Amino acid sequence: MEKGWFLTIEGGEGAGKTTLIEQLAKTLRNQGRQVLTTREPGGIPIAEQIRGIVLDKENTEMDARTEALLYAAARRQHLVEKVLPALARGEIVICDRFIDSSLAYQGYARGLGIAEVQSINEFAISGHMPTLTFWLDISPEAGLARIHAGEGREINRLDLEGLSFHGAVREGYRQLMTKEPERIKRIDAEQAPEYVLRDVVTILNARI
Amino acid sequence: MEKGWFLTIEGGEGAGKTTLIEQLAKTLRNQGRQVLTTREPGGIPIAEQIRGIVLDKENTEMDARTEALLYAAARRQHLVEKVLPALARGEIVICDRFIDSSLAYQGYARGLGIAEVQSINEFAISGHMPTLTFWLDISPEAGLARIHAGEGREINRLDLEGLSFHGAVREGYRQLMTKEPERIKRIDAEQAPEYVLRDVVTILNARI
Repeated sequence: MEKGWFLTIEGGEGAGKTTLIEQLAKTLRNQGRQVLTTREPGGIPIAEQIRGIVLDKENTEMDARTEALLYAAARRQHLVEKVLPALARGEIVICDRFIDSSLAYQGYARGLGIAEVQSINEFAISGHMPTLTFWLDISPEAGLARIHAGEGREINRLDLEGLSFHGAVREGYRQLMTKEPERIKRIDAEQAPEYVLRDVVTILNARI
Repeated sequence: MEKGWFLTIEGGEGAGKTTLIEQLAKTLRNQGRQVLTTREPGGIPIAEQIRGIVLDKENTEMDARTEALLYAAARRQHLVEKVLPALARGEIVICDRFIDSSLAYQGYARGLGIAEVQSINEFAISGHMPTLTFWLDISPEAGLARIHAGEGREINRLDLEGLSFHGAVREGYRQLMTKEPERIKRIDAEQAPEYVLRDVVTILNARI
């Protein structure tokens, strides 16, 4: 383990990751700790260029495995340039999504296979697994309802078709947690934000 | 195995790959076969964009694993868009460098580890290994002398320092051949080009 703590926040759409990260960083800073919050590609030029290729709407021919390799490449560069230096300085790094997002979304829900997506991601992170991962678990229906409340619109037919995909993402996370229960902690994200924060802080305090 | 034949040509600098590929394609076409010669990124826009990031001189911070993942991503896209369609049409595809270059150069000579670089490349090629691979084996000294004869200049100190790296590349190829003797065929590339071609055609005819 590095000097610092490497925390990753995972979960489906509408689970409240952004809110938790803001409040958790504030709580930890109030305890006098140095905290870096980040998300890939995190302003790292090489990682931004790689994401640019993935997100370019002209690239309609992109194969799913090409995409997974590009995400792993961007992850590597963000890790090396931003996360590892902060950990070496002894900071707490809180990262919005990391390896488990690729495993749950691409490996499980998109069907590339968790083990196969894991092999390229293990190459990318070379042993630098998160110290702890908080999986904000929410039902796809509740997550969707939250997003739409924010956007002020009704749930439509396309949203409902997306529910089975988000259900698969949730099942992917569940399988990952079962394999690594010491690292991945499930948090009930259907609770109000203050209870989500409380549960995360309780687990963290027990470990520090 | 696909309908067509997927041949890859490997070897160090100055081994004569380009000359062999031209003459082999001509020989096979004279036998009435459809032949596609290619090399990565092969004019595939997504693969060209990926190579652009790797080769951008501004990207001095690029980590060796990021680079290996980007090469694997470009390989995947070139395979899917160019190689596999030609094989499906029953053509013979001759590719200048493929997976074994990454294993010998990055895995062995650069020290990332053959097994680790293999894991990301197996993800990239998803079972589409070459039918046959011809390793044009030449000593680093002889390869270097050939390149310099073409350039009309003397061998200098920097060239000589590069010899140990090219010696490591050669040892990498040797290890790969030992592991997969049915697929990887060593060709003595210190011979004149007509004998290199003859040896390759003899092996090919025995297989067809």
